[in-house]
Amino acid sequence: MTAPANAANLHVILTSARDREFLDSWAELEAIGATPDGGVERQAASAEDGQMRVWFSQWLRDRGFTVEVDRIGNLFGLLEFRPGAPYVLVGSHLDSQPRGGRFDGAYGVLAGAVAADRIRRQAAESSETPAYNIAVVDWFNEEGSRFKPSLMGSAVFTGASDLEDTLSITDDDGVTVRDALTAINSIGEHDVFGTAEDARQLAAYAEIHIEQGRELEKHNVAIGLVDRTWAANKYELNVIGYQGHTGATAIDDRQDALLGASLIVVALRDIADEFGEELHTSCGQLTVLPNSPVVVPREVHMHLDLRSDNDDLLAAADAELRKRIVEAEIRAKVKVEHRKAHVWPGHHYQPQGVELARTVADDLGVSSMLVQTRAGHDSTNMKEIVPSVMLFVPSVEGISHAEAEYTADEDLCTGVDLLTESLARMLDGALDSAAAERV
Amino acid sequence: MTAPANAANLHVILTSARDREFLDSWAELEAIGATPDGGVERQAASAEDGQMRVWFSQWLRDRGFTVEVDRIGNLFGLLEFRPGAPYVLVGSHLDSQPRGGRFDGAYGVLAGAVAADRIRRQAAESSETPAYNIAVVDWFNEEGSRFKPSLMGSAVFTGASDLEDTLSITDDDGVTVRDALTAINSIGEHDVFGTAEDARQLAAYAEIHIEQGRELEKHNVAIGLVDRTWAANKYELNVIGYQGHTGATAIDDRQDALLGASLIVVALRDIADEFGEELHTSCGQLTVLPNSPVVVPREVHMHLDLRSDNDDLLAAADAELRKRIVEAEIRAKVKVEHRKAHVWPGHHYQPQGVELARTVADDLGVSSMLVQTRAGHDSTNMKEIVPSVMLFVPSVEGISHAEAEYTADEDLCTGVDLLTESLARMLDGALDSAAAERV
Repeated sequence: MTAPANAANLHVILTSARDREFLDSWAELEAIGATPDGGVERQAASAEDGQMRVWFSQWLRDRGFTVEVDRIGNLFGLLEFRPGAPYVLVGSHLDSQPRGGRFDGAYGVLAGAVAADRIRRQAAESSETPAYNIAVVDWFNEEGSRFKPSLMGSAVFTGASDLEDTLSITDDDGVTVRDALTAINSIGEHDVFGTAEDARQLAAYAEIHIEQGRELEKHNVAIGLVDRTWAANKYELNVIGYQGHTGATAIDDRQDALLGASLIVVALRDIADEFGEELHTSCGQLTVLPNSPVVVPREVHMHLDLRSDNDDLLAAADAELRKRIVEAEIRAKVKVEHRKAHVWPGHHYQPQGVELARTVADDLGVSSMLVQTRAGHDSTNMKEIVPSVMLFVPSVEGISHAEAEYTADEDLCTGVDLLTESLARMLDGALDSAAAERV
Repeated sequence: MTAPANAANLHVILTSARDREFLDSWAELEAIGATPDGGVERQAASAEDGQMRVWFSQWLRDRGFTVEVDRIGNLFGLLEFRPGAPYVLVGSHLDSQPRGGRFDGAYGVLAGAVAADRIRRQAAESSETPAYNIAVVDWFNEEGSRFKPSLMGSAVFTGASDLEDTLSITDDDGVTVRDALTAINSIGEHDVFGTAEDARQLAAYAEIHIEQGRELEKHNVAIGLVDRTWAANKYELNVIGYQGHTGATAIDDRQDALLGASLIVVALRDIADEFGEELHTSCGQLTVLPNSPVVVPREVHMHLDLRSDNDDLLAAADAELRKRIVEAEIRAKVKVEHRKAHVWPGHHYQPQGVELARTVADDLGVSSMLVQTRAGHDSTNMKEIVPSVMLFVPSVEGISHAEAEYTADEDLCTGVDLLTESLARMLDGALDSAAAERV
């Protein structure tokens, strides 16, 4: 059966050729690691992540990008306009949570790549050469589900984490980051950018992402200008009890690690209820040993986080949590070991970046508003070393890290347009003053 | 260095030849699947369980037993004194919990085998033939850690569970009981005992086990005469939430399956505290999906049990638990699915069996007392089809399902002596009146 001619015409009217180019590539991309219920599963350094990297590298090479991978598996596509000039970097991440959403991360990488490609074509048709070069990046392991912590590739890139320590981190099966990256043939021998005099330099960074919240949807606004990231305290605890028979061990004799852990999970919610909307508390990962129906658990490993945009409130919540952990130790007769803690302080993005994006939105006639990000992003790391612009597009009902995550095609395409124009201005030095201020 | 002669003499004085025979076999047995911290790991149908079955079969054959395996992997060693006569069965289980104790189950199997072997030798030296034959059994999968539920082999043997349904049960990796038994070459094609006229019949059953409690130790008594088993309600729940980002999802929007599950774990302990010593409540197994640090859990699978010797109190605790589950559903915005429930009612052992063992203890000059069992045992199933005697030996501090589980050699040997004499009298028809009463 042939589609009626008027349906094809309608499609042409509603979707510009420019949008179709992005959406066609998007359709190819989101099929990699697709789950039956509409999500994706492409955990860091999995076979699906490897498959995606092959596809994306080919996409870049087809359009004239040079593809390079650094020592922690960050994948770069470089376009050089002016040999020796610094680069503006744009990107996000192609890995996902287990049964994650299609848009989280992947949208930002393809949007960045398409934006860079548009600029390449504009430059080829123009007599003027941009002041800077441009590169697109797929950061390794933003999600942190298989290998902890999250934001791994960008943390090593910016120097927040040590390369060798990070390569030695293992997953639950004891596989190292190094071996997992080697298995998907995605580990390089050199840095792609560097601080040495003769290495490539960075001028600025940009990232676009779905909001993973409801503010834009609520206000019917197309673009979020991220001016601040929430602070996050992340904790890894081991709750140590003593293994016993669930039938035979008297309640008073029990040292029940799962009871201790459960009291902490409930305490987290009590604290969120007490402190109000400015605080998010969670336990996302909890593993019980030996996990047999008739055995009192001897040990529980758990990962918690507390997040807020208010540093004082976060400190107060942290103190309250520690008090509740001691109460859990006493009631369950267990010992809680604080194994690791990562603290990401709340920080502002450079105001020049926010202002640049707002001006571009106004010039394109696109609605925009200031938003904060509660989730961490690779730009959280990048803004510490170069002026960074972080943009959001709406995310229906704020659903994320779930298969029902959804952003409409129109919003995706508006985001690509806004990112393209912002990058074009960054290539012409729009954020030079922000960079100078940092020195 | 040579041990001083007087140390060797002391050993001879303290340990009779008869005890040494048991202890030497015990030393061989407990080495199979031994863990570095003094426990064992021989989960049902694991490689270690297979290795143990090979060792035990050889032990039996060396002493003239005929070895047969039934269709659910129960392993029998048979001694026929009187062709066509019914059998007295004795045994327990050789599988263990993950990082379990050395004595739980394995002691009862070897004690039964040694007792049967002593009776074989006595019969060979005597002019009288026992009225019944004797068989020893290693019941398949008493522990239920890898394949649920526990007491699997004896449940199929007694008809409490269906053979084909049970063979199709899978572990967490999707391996069926049938395939796991086939892999260790421990699945037979026929029943070893049966109800048909021409099949072997059973006259009675006996089992000895460590107490897994502190009553005997507290009263300094050598043998526990089990007159009653606690009732147990076991539940399998699925807590259904919705996956989300721990940073981005507002607390009010969360459907946090782990919070729901944790509220239920805490409720279990609250109920135990409220109802007192007559009730044991536990959650031994809890599995979180997707179990990633920055993802609100979408689903939790959990196994709970409630146990009591008081049926009314158990029913009241069950009602209270159901109320608390509804409260957890409301607070965490989750749905709790009741997937499976197994109910083992509390039951008395046949009083003639208790009386027989008490008389034997008195005759041997061994202290004894009535005890209840809170844990389930294969005798819990067997007493439903034949008169059954269940004996306990002391267990230091009541520790069980743990590597520190310990019973002194002297107590082990006293148990073997008492079991041997009890079996000898059962072979001469001491429980015939109990059997007749059941008809």
